[in-house]
Amino acid sequence: MKYSIMVEYALHSLTYLIDLPKEQPIGIKDLAEFQGLSETYLSKVFGKLSKAGIVKSVPGVKGGYSLASAPDTISFLDVVNAVEGVQPIFQCQNILRHAKESKVETRCADCTVKKTPCIINLTMLAAEQQMHAYLQGKTLAWLHSELDVILSPERRAEIQQFFIK
Amino acid sequence: MKYSIMVEYALHSLTYLIDLPKEQPIGIKDLAEFQGLSETYLSKVFGKLSKAGIVKSVPGVKGGYSLASAPDTISFLDVVNAVEGVQPIFQCQNILRHAKESKVETRCADCTVKKTPCIINLTMLAAEQQMHAYLQGKTLAWLHSELDVILSPERRAEIQQFFIK
Repeated sequence: MKYSIMVEYALHSLTYLIDLPKEQPIGIKDLAEFQGLSETYLSKVFGKLSKAGIVKSVPGVKGGYSLASAPDTISFLDVVNAVEGVQPIFQCQNILRHAKESKVETRCADCTVKKTPCIINLTMLAAEQQMHAYLQGKTLAWLHSELDVILSPERRAEIQQFFIK
Repeated sequence: MKYSIMVEYALHSLTYLIDLPKEQPIGIKDLAEFQGLSETYLSKVFGKLSKAGIVKSVPGVKGGYSLASAPDTISFLDVVNAVEGVQPIFQCQNILRHAKESKVETRCADCTVKKTPCIINLTMLAAEQQMHAYLQGKTLAWLHSELDVILSPERRAEIQQFFIK
């Protein structure tokens, strides 16, 4: 089981958006060129981010995408959910229902609703929730502050220079 | 992103194994019949569990599979890893390396080794670790004790009766 490579593309691309002055958009073409990625594929990633309200499209010659809200309101989980969807990782097909002479009569139409009597499904959902809580606690603002530690001021200025036209 | 349906099949099938007297094997045919599952598909699941040392094959007319070790030494994580493999959920293709004039020169051959300078990859690995830790803490012995709460003694006896020939 793996997340789509789109998750990596999304998170990395957003690091460039948070590092620019507010409202400064970046074009997909520049993001693709700078990262050595496919422009077409990156467009699909930003389509998903835009649909989820994480980025917004800015029209015009110097247009592109900018963050739709403040970096401290956008979490890693928001990005993962935007790209991967919000279905549970664990596939509960409620196979207990088919067990011989089972008393489990209702099919679990929505596994996120904890009405199923199946302890296995509840355990898997709780496990996933641990991962989600961690990702929810990491915001783009946090990522921005981490970049202060990792990237030299020179490299950071160099990157900003590339994107600011 | 989803776990294979094999994870559900594996966990549910193991609940029947832990509920039987020690060393009492269950045949795939009976497990498939009781749960209303495909025998062929369930054989593949048990092939993976056997390869990972979670169950062992017991030959003979009354043969089948039994747990290979004590239920308190087998975790949900062991089962998930047996079925899904142990690769990280997050695909790090180290795209930073391709960034313009990047100083990231080494390719991250093994993302589980935390030598990559990429904070995004480290964050995703840490998030997954939260889920793994939770699953590691839930053993088949724990599941067995939970069944005491959920299943009536009558239903439990009924199930055991089906599998004990």
